[in-house]
Amino acid sequence: MATIRLLSDAEVEKIPAVKAVFDDIRATRKSDFVNNFWRGLANDPAALKRVWEQLKAVMFADSAIDPLTKEMIYIAVSTANGCSYCIHSHTAAARAKGMTDAQHGELVSIIGLAGQTNHLVTAMQISLDPQFEVK
Amino acid sequence: MATIRLLSDAEVEKIPAVKAVFDDIRATRKSDFVNNFWRGLANDPAALKRVWEQLKAVMFADSAIDPLTKEMIYIAVSTANGCSYCIHSHTAAARAKGMTDAQHGELVSIIGLAGQTNHLVTAMQISLDPQFEVK
Amino acid sequence: MATIRLLSDAEVEKIPAVKAVFDDIRATRKSDFVNNFWRGLANDPAALKRVWEQLKAVMFADSAIDPLTKEMIYIAVSTANGCSYCIHSHTAAARAKGMTDAQHGELVSIIGLAGQTNHLVTAMQISLDPQFEVK
Amino acid sequence: MATIRLLSDAEVEKIPAVKAVFDDIRATRKSDFVNNFWRGLANDPAALKRVWEQLKAVMFADSAIDPLTKEMIYIAVSTANGCSYCIHSHTAAARAKGMTDAQHGELVSIIGLAGQTNHLVTAMQISLDPQFEVK
Amino acid sequence: MATIRLLSDAEVEKIPAVKAVFDDIRATRKSDFVNNFWRGLANDPAALKRVWEQLKAVMFADSAIDPLTKEMIYIAVSTANGCSYCIHSHTAAARAKGMTDAQHGELVSIIGLAGQTNHLVTAMQISLDPQFEVK
Amino acid sequence: MATIRLLSDAEVEKIPAVKAVFDDIRATRKSDFVNNFWRGLANDPAALKRVWEQLKAVMFADSAIDPLTKEMIYIAVSTANGCSYCIHSHTAAARAKGMTDAQHGELVSIIGLAGQTNHLVTAMQISLDPQFEVK
Repeated sequence: MATIRLLSDAEVEKIPAVKAVFDDIRATRKSDFVNNFWRGLANDPAALKRVWEQLKAVMFADSAIDPLTKEMIYIAVSTANGCSYCIHSHTAAARAKGMTDAQHGELVSIIGLAGQTNHLVTAMQISLDPQFEVK
Repeated sequence: MATIRLLSDAEVEKIPAVKAVFDDIRATRKSDFVNNFWRGLANDPAALKRVWEQLKAVMFADSAIDPLTKEMIYIAVSTANGCSYCIHSHTAAARAKGMTDAQHGELVSIIGLAGQTNHLVTAMQISLDPQFEVK
Repeated sequence: MATIRLLSDAEVEKIPAVKAVFDDIRATRKSDFVNNFWRGLANDPAALKRVWEQLKAVMFADSAIDPLTKEMIYIAVSTANGCSYCIHSHTAAARAKGMTDAQHGELVSIIGLAGQTNHLVTAMQISLDPQFEVK
Repeated sequence: MATIRLLSDAEVEKIPAVKAVFDDIRATRKSDFVNNFWRGLANDPAALKRVWEQLKAVMFADSAIDPLTKEMIYIAVSTANGCSYCIHSHTAAARAKGMTDAQHGELVSIIGLAGQTNHLVTAMQISLDPQFEVK
Repeated sequence: MATIRLLSDAEVEKIPAVKAVFDDIRATRKSDFVNNFWRGLANDPAALKRVWEQLKAVMFADSAIDPLTKEMIYIAVSTANGCSYCIHSHTAAARAKGMTDAQHGELVSIIGLAGQTNHLVTAMQISLDPQFEVK
Repeated sequence: MATIRLLSDAEVEKIPAVKAVFDDIRATRKSDFVNNFWRGLANDPAALKRVWEQLKAVMFADSAIDPLTKEMIYIAVSTANGCSYCIHSHTAAARAKGMTDAQHGELVSIIGLAGQTNHLVTAMQISLDPQFEVK
């Protein structure tokens, strides 16, 4: 359970600053569903607006990385950070953007392998090869 | 500095089990350069072989995710885990596989955004929407 | 569910070393409620005493940081470490010490922002400015 | 060393979108010093603007949490995330905002204690007391 | 709930590559019980085989570290990484290998203490003593 | 470089509360060397005493886990938390307590494997088997 209240649609209707963001979320995603993350953030309308506009700019704008890859990167970070909610929501988003079972299986393997080599490198405290330096 | 010794090429020459893996690393990557990570792992030839064969299977085999995307996922995990060496080596690998400045900039932004929403979700302890459940 | 048993008040009554700590927890906090953390630690009476005396010294003694700020710092660490139980218990403690909705909203935003810039700095491996060095 | 180039003032002068943000950083902080974090982010002018405007809103606007407390919360998150650069830069910022040696010592102790109880709770997988639930 | 399906024994029977690994898990562990981790990994038969063979080599082969100590090290890493499932499964494994209540209590205390000193060291950014350098 | 000053022996001599702890560290460890961690903590004499007495009780007292195993558990936690200083100091301590190259190699492999399966479990969000529940 959350440490704050999750706002219902009826409550959102009464706060114009929140309502405007929820309307934009629905229009941008072309879906009526607004998930609990936004209902929690809605307790602080300014924060809601800041986070949503940023997410819209990074995840929905045309860009050099395709939408499915973006979601896979998001899952990777969320896994390493241990954020269950984020893993579930972005796995659902990746599925909605066409992630196949094979791609999901490979994503899980890459995340696991990186987790392993990160730990190996850290345990051995490997020093940086000069070849990796950015000039 | 490392907590173990990093094996030089001269030392590797004397341990057939290690030499065989180093030869395969060089052949697979089509490069003479073998970075320090493998020189540290080489202290334990069985571990060296296990980790390399796994990395070869996950990162070099034909697959449903393209090589550059794999490297970006690796960078994402390594960043969330705070592994400096891994971030440097996989950023270099991604660059070698064609990552542009624009893609790198977006990757950094997605990682940063995921870091933010992971922390927001965790601080608020947002409960899972039933829509995200896998049936 | 816990990986150890949580001791009930009836069980605590029978172990004088545990009973003494529980009595001090109740007296110090001016509340009869002893939460599950202490009931788990009670399996190791020496550890229970060590952790409680430390917490009492750091969190309850007069000091240069006010009690509410201490709880907010505790929530910040617990969030970055992903400890759900700790986030819940210290958010409840902060509320009991007067944290307002506005303060909670700002706390969540600061934690989220720090999560973001921590990830950005790490992904870019920003080198330390000499101005930040302690002489 | 960074995985990207850090832009010098001479380079910043040539990119109006970056120059505008650097000017605002200098004006807001009342200091000519712009630290390396912003010089790295400047590679992506849109990201630079997004992150700075957010940091300005969260850390510099009038609010319910005082500026020094904000910096201490930032240090707490950065420590749990292991971001050396962030710990150094925000410890310097906290000092500039008046953090005393006594407050720094207590901050370090609270962070350490939270690190300990976070690990204890997680190792024992303590279940949530119903008293901590938000209604 | 998982982000992938967990394969039942009936489903495993139909996939020879998965069946072979499950048979080996049962034979190696001398138990009919195959836990959910393997049922999730079974969605990707090659990954299942890779991970199992590695775990078998590291955790079940004769070695310089005794089986119970290995499980305690596993619990330590899993706790610091916040992996609830892993903490539960490896605590059960350690118990099955003879971990006493006293040993479990001490393990929890060591993990907690390391969590604390890790945070203290990081908050203070302690520089490495030359005595700890590996020559 | 540290965010606080590290106290020299000459400075320690002038603060009786710190001197007493340093004397006990030297006597308990049977060594004149006092590493930087304690020289940083010494800025807060009460914290120095609290942390040292705890470490002495957990790491130096007779107990159900042998001294070398304790150090390996410490290395495991420190690696997962990414604390370079801690990894170096406790690897040196483990070596001093007799850790062989073979044991170190296995320790590194177990830590790496746990890092991998922790990430795999988290990415797949594996649900707990009822068999792992503590009654």
